[in-house]
Amino acid sequence: MNVLIILAHPERASFNGALVDVAVTELKRAGHTVEVNDLFAAGFEPVEQADRYAKLEPDAAFAPLDVQRTHYENDALPADIERELAMLDWADLVIFQFPLWWHAQPAILKGWFDRVMVYGGRYTSRMRYDHGYFRGKRAMLSVTAGSPEATFQPFGRAGDMVAWLWPIHSSLYYVGFDVLAPQVSYGVQGGGIRYQQESTLATHLEACKTRWSTRLSRLSDETPIPFAGWADWNDEGVLDRAAPLRWRLG
Amino acid sequence: MNVLIILAHPERASFNGALVDVAVTELKRAGHTVEVNDLFAAGFEPVEQADRYAKLEPDAAFAPLDVQRTHYENDALPADIERELAMLDWADLVIFQFPLWWHAQPAILKGWFDRVMVYGGRYTSRMRYDHGYFRGKRAMLSVTAGSPEATFQPFGRAGDMVAWLWPIHSSLYYVGFDVLAPQVSYGVQGGGIRYQQESTLATHLEACKTRWSTRLSRLSDETPIPFAGWADWNDEGVLDRAAPLRWRLG
Repeated sequence: MNVLIILAHPERASFNGALVDVAVTELKRAGHTVEVNDLFAAGFEPVEQADRYAKLEPDAAFAPLDVQRTHYENDALPADIERELAMLDWADLVIFQFPLWWHAQPAILKGWFDRVMVYGGRYTSRMRYDHGYFRGKRAMLSVTAGSPEATFQPFGRAGDMVAWLWPIHSSLYYVGFDVLAPQVSYGVQGGGIRYQQESTLATHLEACKTRWSTRLSRLSDETPIPFAGWADWNDEGVLDRAAPLRWRLG
Repeated sequence: MNVLIILAHPERASFNGALVDVAVTELKRAGHTVEVNDLFAAGFEPVEQADRYAKLEPDAAFAPLDVQRTHYENDALPADIERELAMLDWADLVIFQFPLWWHAQPAILKGWFDRVMVYGGRYTSRMRYDHGYFRGKRAMLSVTAGSPEATFQPFGRAGDMVAWLWPIHSSLYYVGFDVLAPQVSYGVQGGGIRYQQESTLATHLEACKTRWSTRLSRLSDETPIPFAGWADWNDEGVLDRAAPLRWRLG
């Protein structure tokens, strides 16, 4: 299996970086081929704007989806996007390693979605969800969070982790990935950078690493997160009353 | 009232830009003072990384929260962040105008949270939520989405808009804002840029603008979205069984 790990933390010596090292070791031990794409080290530019693109047409207002499609169809995508797409095409499993910042992924990884998931090339109005481009591939989030696990609950102080990750999971499913349950390492204070000096935190973080390594050794047994799909919707995109019962709420 | 509109769309001539113009006109007509902060035009840098900061200490691993706090306490924040903070301090109401990209705000606006909401300065472990720095100020999202309104429902094709905006609403509440219900303009195809040429879409978009203008004229009557707060949590940050009944789920 080809595994691509996309790292989005500004400090390679962080606990996020350490979790990447754990994953590389464990996955290689199991015989997989692993590549790490460190977005900060690569200087990935997350802002989608007109000057990313060679000008194919006379000056016009910048409509991102139109420009993505036109450049995809003319084989004129930006070089950095072509590199990202080639890595995704190579991978059977994509792991996203990042800290939860402001209830979501860091901006560099948000912009990775904005720019890499090219309209016309990686999705269209029909090539989405369970008809998506990446179907057959798996994706998974490995997330660190500063607050303790108990505070992450609906109406709890840190809120519902399922809710924070739902937009990202849904974006991955949108382009066809089978999404595995996330790996969340809670209580990673100070980015985990000070952990060598603080023995209680160090013990906790070692346990997080062990949990991650153990989980990775058993990934093949896992069932992806369920999502609604084309069979559930009528032509207007609304939940069809004839759809499987599992999605019926009322 | 001082109103700050933060625009996050790469094209000022987009429908998002038009909604800003509507808001400026309506709010000024009602006697308010309005400033527009166009993040793309300003070239706002959304990636939080070590080289944004003057070096105050010897080389060390980059722990973003530690560095934010140290630079805040030493009055050494980056100049662009100081500008953003001054605008927020001036505002009574902050409106965020952006297109929904990949189930969230564009990266430039995600990074605005990552960089501007400075640890130590705009929040600490106690200065959060209903004890947040910005308490007494209001914030509101005005969002455009390409898909029709009917497809945005739980398990519908475009999913639950409440879920897509919940992380952003929660981030605003985290720093103390009273968050008003979002204004969502659905069915804004092609960024709304082609609307002058397409009469059905043009009619729809004119209706969106009228709806926005009408709502803005009545904002003072609105009650913010309810969130759980300090009175609801015990010392471990878990929903307290003695908390008001409104949050009890089970």
